[in-house]
Amino acid sequence: MTSSPSFLERIRLGDKRALSRLLTQVENDDAEVAPILAELSSPNRRAYRIGITGPPGAGKSTLAKELVKAYRKSQQTVAVVAVDPTSPFTGGALLGDRIRMSDVMLDSGVFIRSMATRGSLGGLAAKAAEVSRVLEAAGYDIIIFETVGVGQSELDIVKAADTIVVALVPESGDSVQAMKAGLMEIADVFAMNKADRADSDKAVQALESSLELRERSVDAWRVPVVKTVAMNGVGISDLRSAIETHRAYLQSKGLLEKKRQARDQELVERLVEEKWRRAFWTESRREFLAQKLSERLSPYLVADLLFSNDEQT
Amino acid sequence: MTSSPSFLERIRLGDKRALSRLLTQVENDDAEVAPILAELSSPNRRAYRIGITGPPGAGKSTLAKELVKAYRKSQQTVAVVAVDPTSPFTGGALLGDRIRMSDVMLDSGVFIRSMATRGSLGGLAAKAAEVSRVLEAAGYDIIIFETVGVGQSELDIVKAADTIVVALVPESGDSVQAMKAGLMEIADVFAMNKADRADSDKAVQALESSLELRERSVDAWRVPVVKTVAMNGVGISDLRSAIETHRAYLQSKGLLEKKRQARDQELVERLVEEKWRRAFWTESRREFLAQKLSERLSPYLVADLLFSNDEQT
Repeated sequence: MTSSPSFLERIRLGDKRALSRLLTQVENDDAEVAPILAELSSPNRRAYRIGITGPPGAGKSTLAKELVKAYRKSQQTVAVVAVDPTSPFTGGALLGDRIRMSDVMLDSGVFIRSMATRGSLGGLAAKAAEVSRVLEAAGYDIIIFETVGVGQSELDIVKAADTIVVALVPESGDSVQAMKAGLMEIADVFAMNKADRADSDKAVQALESSLELRERSVDAWRVPVVKTVAMNGVGISDLRSAIETHRAYLQSKGLLEKKRQARDQELVERLVEEKWRRAFWTESRREFLAQKLSERLSPYLVADLLFSNDEQT
Repeated sequence: MTSSPSFLERIRLGDKRALSRLLTQVENDDAEVAPILAELSSPNRRAYRIGITGPPGAGKSTLAKELVKAYRKSQQTVAVVAVDPTSPFTGGALLGDRIRMSDVMLDSGVFIRSMATRGSLGGLAAKAAEVSRVLEAAGYDIIIFETVGVGQSELDIVKAADTIVVALVPESGDSVQAMKAGLMEIADVFAMNKADRADSDKAVQALESSLELRERSVDAWRVPVVKTVAMNGVGISDLRSAIETHRAYLQSKGLLEKKRQARDQELVERLVEEKWRRAFWTESRREFLAQKLSERLSPYLVADLLFSNDEQT
């Protein structure tokens, strides 16, 4: 049923239920889904990808919600992909954040997808990339990735974005921590959120001076620090401007196309690998593997045998 | 130099500096290291793997340290692999924990390795498995995996252990959270740590009754809850007994061998995949990929072409 043309057409026309169903198939590694994605994918549809990351409590969800509103004001459609690869012990405010976003959820030009990923082994970044590809094909202009924390898999997810917004709060040591976490390297724009706090100017200055020290070539992008109070919508238009300026910068340098090509390349590599895996691991090779291991052969030797001696299998 | 027989011999004889050097090569994906590992790996050396996981603040490091002491008392050598895949924002007490373990570090029968993994993309569980294989070959009797939190990659790491100890503290909701985090499914032994707190008996009872409800077949392992106060060494011998009982259970059911075979199988799969990747991605295939993507072909189509048409390359 999902392969009928009307299903594809419904997605292209913005049917959210059809879209949700397809995304679930993508997340579940449904094999049926590959030809649909192949057909759906179109080089002419272009979504701009914004990643929002930062420590828990920096207000990432609120920033995302306000950015959605800002883009909606100029008639652009927005999809939000909220990813939570952390456990309920260390994070997981995601559900609450989603409810807080409910006023934008009623908007037909907004699509919100949360990826709760406990149990889906590995490849979270790859999955998020595929989800965003579907959202792009479905016609969304802007895709916002939002993560709960700044763990490794979350960084991998936002790294696929065109513009990476790192949200911080003016707390002592927060920018030092950002540096340690590798956020300085990946940030295209800093949002110093909750900037109505007393020490916010000092925090912005400290961040700016450490950014100054890191400046490299003359025409490199200069990472701006934007003060926001997302709760009250303050600074959001500045933040959006900073994102748009970065977008124009990428475009002028041909970097947007490069990022896209790098994403496509990664997808091809993954798809080829998947094809190979399915073709290689035949019943007989699986039996050979089990047999040799039960004979106590070293895994390193077994791998050599499997890879070199095709006649063995 | 690292391929000289004396290097291998030194590792087999317990030279910690040689071992550290080899482990660094393993972590860095040094290609030279594969033949060394192949030679080093021996089916006759058997280490028992214990994984310790649980929410931050449950005292996992202290439990690990006390277990090390307990095993050392019976002349068994112990290696500890401490893994921290989280960011400095959400965890990262690891360094401090390592310093706190310093009294056991001076013991020649103890080896402590921390894997700080920010930046090493993916495959953390695979890496930890390879590290533990080296430690096994180096002759350690017991390998303890310790994680900082309970993120997905941390769970993947402890899942490779023979006995999984889940540490909790008697705080309201902690066991409910454990259930949500999927810790109930993977725990072989629960350590209710900091059990000198007032509400510890209640917490143990609550945990035991939820475990009762989950009981399945008659001869399934019954997950024990052990009360500990790791800071004072209280309950550690009970914890060790529980681990040893689980070990005997696994052995009696032939499950220990099965776990080992599953680990070996995973390693073979990964090694074969690595070999294939190196062989497949020739210069000409890379060029073909770049060319087709620049022509705006769909990644799905390019993957098909690459995989099917060998003559294309």
